[in-house]
Amino acid sequence: MTTQVRSRPRERLLDAAATLAYRDGVSVGVEALCKAAGVSKRSMYQLFESKDGLLAASLERRAADFEVRFLPGPDDERSARERILYVFERVESQAALPEYLGCPYLAVQIELKDEGHPASRVARRVKENLMAFFRSEAARGGANDPDLLARQLTLVFDGASARAGIKVDDLSGLVAPTLNALLDAAGLC
Amino acid sequence: MTTQVRSRPRERLLDAAATLAYRDGVSVGVEALCKAAGVSKRSMYQLFESKDGLLAASLERRAADFEVRFLPGPDDERSARERILYVFERVESQAALPEYLGCPYLAVQIELKDEGHPASRVARRVKENLMAFFRSEAARGGANDPDLLARQLTLVFDGASARAGIKVDDLSGLVAPTLNALLDAAGLC
Repeated sequence: MTTQVRSRPRERLLDAAATLAYRDGVSVGVEALCKAAGVSKRSMYQLFESKDGLLAASLERRAADFEVRFLPGPDDERSARERILYVFERVESQAALPEYLGCPYLAVQIELKDEGHPASRVARRVKENLMAFFRSEAARGGANDPDLLARQLTLVFDGASARAGIKVDDLSGLVAPTLNALLDAAGLC
Repeated sequence: MTTQVRSRPRERLLDAAATLAYRDGVSVGVEALCKAAGVSKRSMYQLFESKDGLLAASLERRAADFEVRFLPGPDDERSARERILYVFERVESQAALPEYLGCPYLAVQIELKDEGHPASRVARRVKENLMAFFRSEAARGGANDPDLLARQLTLVFDGASARAGIKVDDLSGLVAPTLNALLDAAGLC
């Protein structure tokens, strides 16, 4: 008996939504989600009020994974500059995976084209947390303008993830010089 | 009689595809496209072999508009640096429009998740032309590494358009300092 079969319907639906929305886009159908999760539509609608709610919940549940995947741990005592560079080393290493399709939170917002959609709101919050991490490290590292540097780093995060996700740039030799130019200009020690 | 009613079915379908795919995403249905264009499905399939073909053709036809909208004219004799900055001033001014939803070529590639799709191939080519413009200006302006600078500028173009398109950053006060840091680091005069 596999882990998936043993896990509960709610968990299986959340996994299916995260996987299929990432691979196929947010227009993935309820039928496909239920089929992948091995759950009836009736059960799905007992667990989630709508496909939109399921999609939002699946993004919410992956938020902790996102932070573990991209942010240095709280006990990582390197400099602010190194902690910022770490995030982008993680982006580069994710981008090298054949199944990489860019940042799921950016993709969801681009695909939904609706700021008020529950999944867009979750995605926006996850990326605001990333920007807050950058802002805090920028301030700790003595940047002239931590707000500006945080916006710049988030722009580079999204631009790099997007271009790697659509397979037009492998990011090799690109991200480090881009960050160094921005961090130097910001006066980050 | 409006212009739209007088234009030919092919043109109306191309306009409808460009408008609706941008506003609603590439999953917009054939019914909706035909309805918006005032063309029967039968006529659509006589003009285009598939919805995918219509989508690709609509992006192709908009490519000239894209260049007119974002690139300086050939008779613009400003410096390479100024000609590069011009592109991003145009991005900022587009981004200020309420109907702005980011770069249509990036959105199509993110939504389709299929490099081989005819619309993805058109989108990729349009952005390669943008990168070629950046590379040519970088070389003309004496950048240390024109290929690197062209990749950086295209990353900033996509990151800035994406973040403005999803309405999480209005780009104000963000793009100019980002470009200046990159152009200075590249040694662009």
